[in-house]
Amino acid sequence: MTYMETLGAKAKAASQAAACAGTQQKNDALRAISEALLAQTERIIRANQEDMEAAVRNGMSTAMQDRLRLDETRIRNIAAAVLKVVALPDPVGEEIAGWLRPNGLRIRQVRVPLGVVGIIFESRPNVTVDAAVLCLKAGNAVILRGGKEAIHSNTCLAQVMREALESVGMPADLVQLVEKTDRETAADMMQLKAYLDVLIPRGGAGLIQAVVRQATVPVIETGAGNCHVYVDDCADLSMAVAITDNAKTQRPSVCNAIETLLVHRDIAPDFLPAVAEAFAVHAVQIHGDETVQKILGDGVVPVTEEDYATEYNDYQIAVRVVDSVEQAVDHIRQYSTRHSECIVTESMEHAEYFLNHVDSAAVYVNASTRFTDGEEFGFGAEIGISTQKLHARGPMGLNALTTIQYRITGNGQVR
Amino acid sequence: MTYMETLGAKAKAASQAAACAGTQQKNDALRAISEALLAQTERIIRANQEDMEAAVRNGMSTAMQDRLRLDETRIRNIAAAVLKVVALPDPVGEEIAGWLRPNGLRIRQVRVPLGVVGIIFESRPNVTVDAAVLCLKAGNAVILRGGKEAIHSNTCLAQVMREALESVGMPADLVQLVEKTDRETAADMMQLKAYLDVLIPRGGAGLIQAVVRQATVPVIETGAGNCHVYVDDCADLSMAVAITDNAKTQRPSVCNAIETLLVHRDIAPDFLPAVAEAFAVHAVQIHGDETVQKILGDGVVPVTEEDYATEYNDYQIAVRVVDSVEQAVDHIRQYSTRHSECIVTESMEHAEYFLNHVDSAAVYVNASTRFTDGEEFGFGAEIGISTQKLHARGPMGLNALTTIQYRITGNGQVR
Repeated sequence: MTYMETLGAKAKAASQAAACAGTQQKNDALRAISEALLAQTERIIRANQEDMEAAVRNGMSTAMQDRLRLDETRIRNIAAAVLKVVALPDPVGEEIAGWLRPNGLRIRQVRVPLGVVGIIFESRPNVTVDAAVLCLKAGNAVILRGGKEAIHSNTCLAQVMREALESVGMPADLVQLVEKTDRETAADMMQLKAYLDVLIPRGGAGLIQAVVRQATVPVIETGAGNCHVYVDDCADLSMAVAITDNAKTQRPSVCNAIETLLVHRDIAPDFLPAVAEAFAVHAVQIHGDETVQKILGDGVVPVTEEDYATEYNDYQIAVRVVDSVEQAVDHIRQYSTRHSECIVTESMEHAEYFLNHVDSAAVYVNASTRFTDGEEFGFGAEIGISTQKLHARGPMGLNALTTIQYRITGNGQVR
Repeated sequence: MTYMETLGAKAKAASQAAACAGTQQKNDALRAISEALLAQTERIIRANQEDMEAAVRNGMSTAMQDRLRLDETRIRNIAAAVLKVVALPDPVGEEIAGWLRPNGLRIRQVRVPLGVVGIIFESRPNVTVDAAVLCLKAGNAVILRGGKEAIHSNTCLAQVMREALESVGMPADLVQLVEKTDRETAADMMQLKAYLDVLIPRGGAGLIQAVVRQATVPVIETGAGNCHVYVDDCADLSMAVAITDNAKTQRPSVCNAIETLLVHRDIAPDFLPAVAEAFAVHAVQIHGDETVQKILGDGVVPVTEEDYATEYNDYQIAVRVVDSVEQAVDHIRQYSTRHSECIVTESMEHAEYFLNHVDSAAVYVNASTRFTDGEEFGFGAEIGISTQKLHARGPMGLNALTTIQYRITGNGQVR
């Protein structure tokens, strides 16, 4: 057995205990994890220090160092987030549908855990805990593979969770960390079809594409967000400015921030100067087409085809003037990563056209794309935002970590 | 653009017409296809003749030749099956859930088409039509890749469907057949991530594993069925015989037929001779453990570990005596392909244990595993039986060919 096969076999063996555990038992385990994180704060910070020292030695950027750092406040927040998951309703066991067949067979469609979930993620060590407790609450075992920059922090966090699980009589192997952070082991994990029921990559586009390319385990793609706001000719001008500004500048680094603004030709002379004024507060760099350049003058960089396909994740935006809602939809269908798009309009007809023709996970009428988020949707927590169409689409809450099973009861029926 | 990219781009362009078509327009298209199949029967049979002649030249087995053959009756049946899909409710547009957030955002979860569906299948040409009309009814474009043995039949069937689509004003490119049947083109199709939303392989284990290995497009695995019946110590003896016999012998070549029989030790002396008598009618070869050999005597082949993992698809069965329902469940969890399993018992407690601990798509109490089928479940038709846990599990009806979209309406909400 390879290293990954050993982990997989242990996870599969442990998974039955999680799948058959009642809600109370799972919540007890989560509470034990939350308490252990608080009780072991010093130990966790010590482990994190080792990663931080290596980060400094290796010249990691200060932004990345900040993502890696764990302090008392952050650990308290992680522990508090675990208790939020305790409060969420248990998805397992829900009878989604049930019907009786003419031959007397009773068919029930019941929600059950996926089994063993694999998570591959990059540097933020809080994901280790967030992802593990969501998987546990949904009755799954989890195998976590974080980045090598966070290996000491992740190992310590996983160990604290394993001890907490054992303290309440649950198998420690419900949470396992891949301690070998080399590429070969990662590749082995992506091929661990005999043991892993799903693989969820969380991180940059490079990581996600590598997983999609190599994995034989079913993958849920998350993340990439080339999102759009379209300001219609029938838009309320001040609402359009507020939504566009919020969607671009409130937190430009996240996937539900917008990257391209589409503006109807008739409203452009009024709207563009107003939104440019709002953008100026954050010194947003505008990449505009000829009409945009004409209206806004100097300071607008000519936009390229490549800009339309770019996820800046920064204070930059592509701006294009369009002739109609149809042209806006065509642009979105061509360049979007199918994450989140918005139309600002007071026209029912244009809103309906936009909703029915845009092929993205979340489509907004008169609200910022920044709401595409598990918490904002009311799911309480999320394991990621799916940008694929199979299994889960958009923000993934606990239900995305379950599957269904048909349970059929008869009294001797044969064909 | 490669050959497959051209097909993909055409499919994606056409898909919008299917996604936005109303139920009536889609049903008109399906009725046109059904009528065209009847009207073009002679042309289809001529094309099929070419495949049949090649089959004879290449020494294809008579069983395979039978699967390949199209005659007037079969074409009439295919055309009738299309009308059955017309009668099914349209899944697209269903509002699955809707809720209001505290900030006034109205979130609706709406069922929408997947977009472009790829189907890779083996020799039976009827799949060309069955799969295409299910995809169309769910608002999708489809790219079909059949086997080279059926290329003339498939090309003709696809052409007849394309003409029918055009006759009702729908784009012909909603149905495209991959006319190049070489492996490189198939590999290109599996990597056609920019255009294909899902790939469904239908065929033997070899085909399915090849697709899983090579595909970057999300795959729904179908098919493999190492299914089990467990006869509990609390079973009704005659019911157990009827179910076991039906599940093994009614149609042994299909995926929902059983391959291994597990029998509780206490009931084995009574049950095994009774079921052996039923099996004798079909000359079923029994591979039994030592207890089975002792009870049934000569004619039982000693069972091996490999037998337990084998999908015979034939008049053969592995038989093992177990000490408890727990041991039966452990056996199933180890060897099953997670398709369909059955317990025969009058004990509520044993039935509940079995339902809660067996990790398969369909779990039966006192009914034959042969019911795992879209039609038998009441779905009207099926595109396949999923043996994976993501997106769809068990028989896949029209809903499995859709995804969801969040539609969010506000009045200027920002974060």
